[in-house]
Amino acid sequence: MIKGIDHLGIAVRSLDEAVKYYEQSLGLKCEGIEEVASQKVRTAFFNVGGTHIELLEPTSPDSPIASFLEKRGEGIHHVAFATDDIEAQLAAARDSGVKLIHEKPFDGAAGKLVAFLHPKSTHGVLTEFCQPKDGAAAH
Amino acid sequence: MIKGIDHLGIAVRSLDEAVKYYEQSLGLKCEGIEEVASQKVRTAFFNVGGTHIELLEPTSPDSPIASFLEKRGEGIHHVAFATDDIEAQLAAARDSGVKLIHEKPFDGAAGKLVAFLHPKSTHGVLTEFCQPKDGAAAH
Repeated sequence: MIKGIDHLGIAVRSLDEAVKYYEQSLGLKCEGIEEVASQKVRTAFFNVGGTHIELLEPTSPDSPIASFLEKRGEGIHHVAFATDDIEAQLAAARDSGVKLIHEKPFDGAAGKLVAFLHPKSTHGVLTEFCQPKDGAAAH
Repeated sequence: MIKGIDHLGIAVRSLDEAVKYYEQSLGLKCEGIEEVASQKVRTAFFNVGGTHIELLEPTSPDSPIASFLEKRGEGIHHVAFATDDIEAQLAAARDSGVKLIHEKPFDGAAGKLVAFLHPKSTHGVLTEFCQPKDGAAAH
């Protein structure tokens, strides 16, 4: 079952510039910056009342975020729903006709199992499911 | 101060089809459908752990959502932050160099004061501030 929105992923060209905007113009506080080598991104996290903003800067021209920036420019890249049973969530989506990018969950950042649904079958929204590996709800 | 993410606005071509997806494929429950004549949209709301998904279908070819769909296709249109003082939030954004779409808050849906920041100065994210008119935090 979906418990909430875990985070919004936002593609940016410069993490430093974007962090400055979220801190100075919106008054939010960056909780940390992390490089995720497998996704070729550097990320910055903000806790916004329990949901997170995750800024994503590509660290390589072949990062998926680099392709997104080239095609669409800066903007919201994906939405991640926290679920307490990612396998069941994926099965229900697949059974209702949704195309999955990942048939099986894999290890994402911050100790979570994650998997993505294809935006072609989610009305244009790149959609992530995520579940903490200890089985607790994500936030 | 920003208290949380009030909602995510998502542009869709058919509200009926998109509601079906969010209900059948994600297991969320539509809380209501409302027409907002001033914005020329029909909206459907889902409560997702306190944050809301707001699906937006244009009711006229000159709706801002119709233009968005034409340019970008279906997808996330805006993010709305709940604030306890929208005037102060707008002033802080403007003072830090952000271009405002609305200098003054106006009446939005669900009894809230709302105003938007221009995506050209928010790293590509059409950003809304909203505040319940009774002054309480929005969720």
